[in-house]
Amino acid sequence: MTGDGSRARRPGGRTRQVTERLSAAALDILAEKGVDGLQYEELAARAKVGRATVYRRWSNRDDLLRDVLARFAEASVPIADTGDVVHDLTTFLHAFAEASATPTGRAVLQILLRRVDEGGGLHRMGLELLDRRTDDLQRRLDRAAEAEQLPPVDAPFVNMMLAGPVQWFVLRRSRPFTLTDAREIVELVVAGLWRNHRD
Amino acid sequence: MTGDGSRARRPGGRTRQVTERLSAAALDILAEKGVDGLQYEELAARAKVGRATVYRRWSNRDDLLRDVLARFAEASVPIADTGDVVHDLTTFLHAFAEASATPTGRAVLQILLRRVDEGGGLHRMGLELLDRRTDDLQRRLDRAAEAEQLPPVDAPFVNMMLAGPVQWFVLRRSRPFTLTDAREIVELVVAGLWRNHRD
Repeated sequence: MTGDGSRARRPGGRTRQVTERLSAAALDILAEKGVDGLQYEELAARAKVGRATVYRRWSNRDDLLRDVLARFAEASVPIADTGDVVHDLTTFLHAFAEASATPTGRAVLQILLRRVDEGGGLHRMGLELLDRRTDDLQRRLDRAAEAEQLPPVDAPFVNMMLAGPVQWFVLRRSRPFTLTDAREIVELVVAGLWRNHRD
Repeated sequence: MTGDGSRARRPGGRTRQVTERLSAAALDILAEKGVDGLQYEELAARAKVGRATVYRRWSNRDDLLRDVLARFAEASVPIADTGDVVHDLTTFLHAFAEASATPTGRAVLQILLRRVDEGGGLHRMGLELLDRRTDDLQRRLDRAAEAEQLPPVDAPFVNMMLAGPVQWFVLRRSRPFTLTDAREIVELVVAGLWRNHRD
């Protein structure tokens, strides 16, 4: 990903390096201190830049958080298209489990869980993030339906049936979530979708 | 439910009334202030009893929390047996959604989500609570398998496939979770379980 429009003076050069360093530092802080702990001052110190540099990139904390969370979600949970939808959903679920089990992933889940009572802005941001990923998933599911690997299905429902169990599993954390676990969930859901489609 | 063994001097009388009042007050505090906010002093004040009365019932905070959470789970999410497993699981899921959407329910979910980093005692308590409910569910699923309404299945897996999506839905809170939503999930999972069983 290149600089997000905010005065990229020398694209690919120092500006990009600084952005990468800031993003990495922001994810570290998020992991250690949660959403409330992500503040400009500490972010600047960790990335070894001036505070003005951070403000120039993100003029408010919401933009900063939105950008960092989107980078985290896209980098850690890609939705591939190898032509085999069961395989791709299995990989997607496994990556989602791994990301959810990290401290940063848990901080992201907390945004969804905690914030609606405290104004709702952060919670809404978490939902926007989910919606963006759901659009990606819908495109993959539509291609699978064209290839007759799935009946026509809605991504929000499928996402709930796949990601919900994984989140449940990860919260219990009694053992690591494996590719075999992911495949068992995907196969059950795909079988159920066909069955309900035929009824 | 009767007094739980802790010096019930006059069962069904004042002792029971006090226990009910304490439990109700504890759930209120949990809903308002989360797990950390549940303290003896405020609990005694709200239930209009002396602090010594609270200590006599629960000599430490872990026992207090464990007892209050168990009451909450059993009262709010019963697992019935009407003879029709799809109906009973639908009712169970709907009740789980309603309970999860309450402030107390969200506080319980937070126990699972937050505490493993901070010593793990509370997190373990949440898991114990889940295990107890899973045992109840296993008994219901076993009866369904005897009646050939389901293949033989493991309650932890089924619980994950049912409760996971509901928790996911509730976290998004874009609209209320209905009985129709519950039925759609149960029917997909039951169909998938049969299909995977036959393969």
